[in-house]
Amino acid sequence: MCEANAYFVKNGNLELIMESVDQLTPQDDNTWHLVGIFGDQKYVRGQIQGMQLVEHKIIFEEVADAPA
Amino acid sequence: MCEANAYFVKNGNLELIMESVDQLTPQDDNTWHLVGIFGDQKYVRGQIQGMQLVEHKIIFEEVADAPA
Repeated sequence: MCEANAYFVKNGNLELIMESVDQLTPQDDNTWHLVGIFGDQKYVRGQIQGMQLVEHKIIFEEVADAPA
Repeated sequence: MCEANAYFVKNGNLELIMESVDQLTPQDDNTWHLVGIFGDQKYVRGQIQGMQLVEHKIIFEEVADAPA
């Protein structure tokens, strides 16, 4: 199985927000819909900072401020 | 290994743009930097339509027009 764990980076620390994520779909308003391998779901507000799939990591961060 | 293949959806068809992607990092200007498991790299202009990690799929699409 090639699912990944989703983290949110806050103050430089990685907080695990969901394990074994299979599907990720962007929604409107800077939110992602995550579905786990067991069908569990979560909505995450943020943007993707980066993914390292071999390490099973998907890292979210706060949405950057819109340009002034 | 849990890499994924990157596709671009165009006219409803999936075109394979890169195999065995390990790392994905968003850049400025709606571009993603992809790094493969062998260190190969590619820049993809577009936005993520969705990911199905268990199926090893990451699907890009054209960037939606900015609101008028």
